[in-house]
Amino acid sequence: MTGTAPADDPALDDEPAGSRFAPLVDVACVRRDGDGARPGHDILADEVPVALVFNGISHAVMMATPQDLEDFALGFSLTERIIERPGDLRDCRRTDFDKGIELALTIPARRFALLKERRRSLVGRTGCGLCGVESLDEAVRPAAALPDGPAIAAAVVARALAAMAPRQVLNQDSHAVHAAAWAGLDGEIALIREDVGRHNAVDKLIGALARAGSDPAAGFLVATSRCSYEIVQKAASAGIRVIAAVSAPTAYAVRLADGANMTLIAFARGARHSLYSHPERITG
Amino acid sequence: MTGTAPADDPALDDEPAGSRFAPLVDVACVRRDGDGARPGHDILADEVPVALVFNGISHAVMMATPQDLEDFALGFSLTERIIERPGDLRDCRRTDFDKGIELALTIPARRFALLKERRRSLVGRTGCGLCGVESLDEAVRPAAALPDGPAIAAAVVARALAAMAPRQVLNQDSHAVHAAAWAGLDGEIALIREDVGRHNAVDKLIGALARAGSDPAAGFLVATSRCSYEIVQKAASAGIRVIAAVSAPTAYAVRLADGANMTLIAFARGARHSLYSHPERITG
Repeated sequence: MTGTAPADDPALDDEPAGSRFAPLVDVACVRRDGDGARPGHDILADEVPVALVFNGISHAVMMATPQDLEDFALGFSLTERIIERPGDLRDCRRTDFDKGIELALTIPARRFALLKERRRSLVGRTGCGLCGVESLDEAVRPAAALPDGPAIAAAVVARALAAMAPRQVLNQDSHAVHAAAWAGLDGEIALIREDVGRHNAVDKLIGALARAGSDPAAGFLVATSRCSYEIVQKAASAGIRVIAAVSAPTAYAVRLADGANMTLIAFARGARHSLYSHPERITG
Repeated sequence: MTGTAPADDPALDDEPAGSRFAPLVDVACVRRDGDGARPGHDILADEVPVALVFNGISHAVMMATPQDLEDFALGFSLTERIIERPGDLRDCRRTDFDKGIELALTIPARRFALLKERRRSLVGRTGCGLCGVESLDEAVRPAAALPDGPAIAAAVVARALAAMAPRQVLNQDSHAVHAAAWAGLDGEIALIREDVGRHNAVDKLIGALARAGSDPAAGFLVATSRCSYEIVQKAASAGIRVIAAVSAPTAYAVRLADGANMTLIAFARGARHSLYSHPERITG
């Protein structure tokens, strides 16, 4: 994979000088269709850890598109009822670090006292990505590298994809529910779980795999959703070596998969897909 | 709106006897196409607050599809590194309350000590929905009722929808970025913000609206995504009275919008849409 931003994208115009992050990243891939595989590249959306720090105390780290972050700081502060009115956000200073962006926000002492009080009575680490993680250092924990192999034939990935729809029971009626499935090395769907939240679907599948005592090397994860940071992080923690996502990956997910020795397949539809990391596991 | 589950849905078979919640809900709507409006109904996915309580201490409340929750408890505990191996989850007891589902989980004392230690060093309330909220009571905060009016013509909603795509600069290249836009009562897009996270896009838009000093009654929110609980909650907190979402709403979002005197339009494409709450604001 590569990771350079398209230089002339008009969307980047409003970013501050010296920004280390771009909302879109040009990423190399191996593109496969019915006729074989060849090198390609895609413009992927990136996601960046953004730490919201109120009066010097870190409150949350959110994965976000690194654009319009002053709007984000103000909107988040209002909708999370950290401040009462726009004027309560006295200052917003952005600092770019290698690992992400810190927004240092200043709010009135009385609102900060309420925030501290609320934090005391609430709980910590949560399930959707990075929220609740205090610092950028902690937010960006690299996944441990997975073992190599086994190889999976491209036709097996296509077979698993074709088997998904009839097994998505909730989605057949509602057209609004994500699925995560576990396919064997023959492309048969062994387990499938559905949820309105794509990370919940993956958590349910990983729980079901654990209960079944399945070997994470003996198959692969198929996700009907986009593949973001948290999907790769959760799959890697369960020892899953190959993900096939029906929709787009984020550039961050590609970097994480690359570093974790995980094969990330996305835009997987029929015999077509794009391989963004460790394509050597996919044959045929 | 109505809220009864389809009685013979096979997806409900594995739910425990006495479950108060169903993954799918049949919801009444007003369906509009080019020829006018008529009553209809849709099967919508629901989302339910699920409290994960470890050794008696509430850790997080997640919005989830109320199905396969034992898998969810185990998978979440593993991927969030609360436990090291499946056997560490000693017990999982489900209790259904009016406001949501509590999963009482038992883990070994040494893992619980580590969780408590981690919680002490981490932070509280977060931005993506309900995570980090300690109890079901706190999770389910009803939105304050919005004021009535003004009416918006259906043709105005269609005009705003048609104006979205050319303004979605990041999505044009990546096809993976959500947008939230603010349209005036003439259907012109006044502001648009994009993000890989749909709640982030809404936060950015609300921040931009606040900076512009816009009147939340003088327009409506257009979201390119599904409309879940958190979108309605965030919009209501900003005083926005009408949401038009391109994709499906959750049943929970419909209930929340209904109670908040908010008009929720979904499946909004061209001249077609479905109205799930307070259709009286949409005319023509």
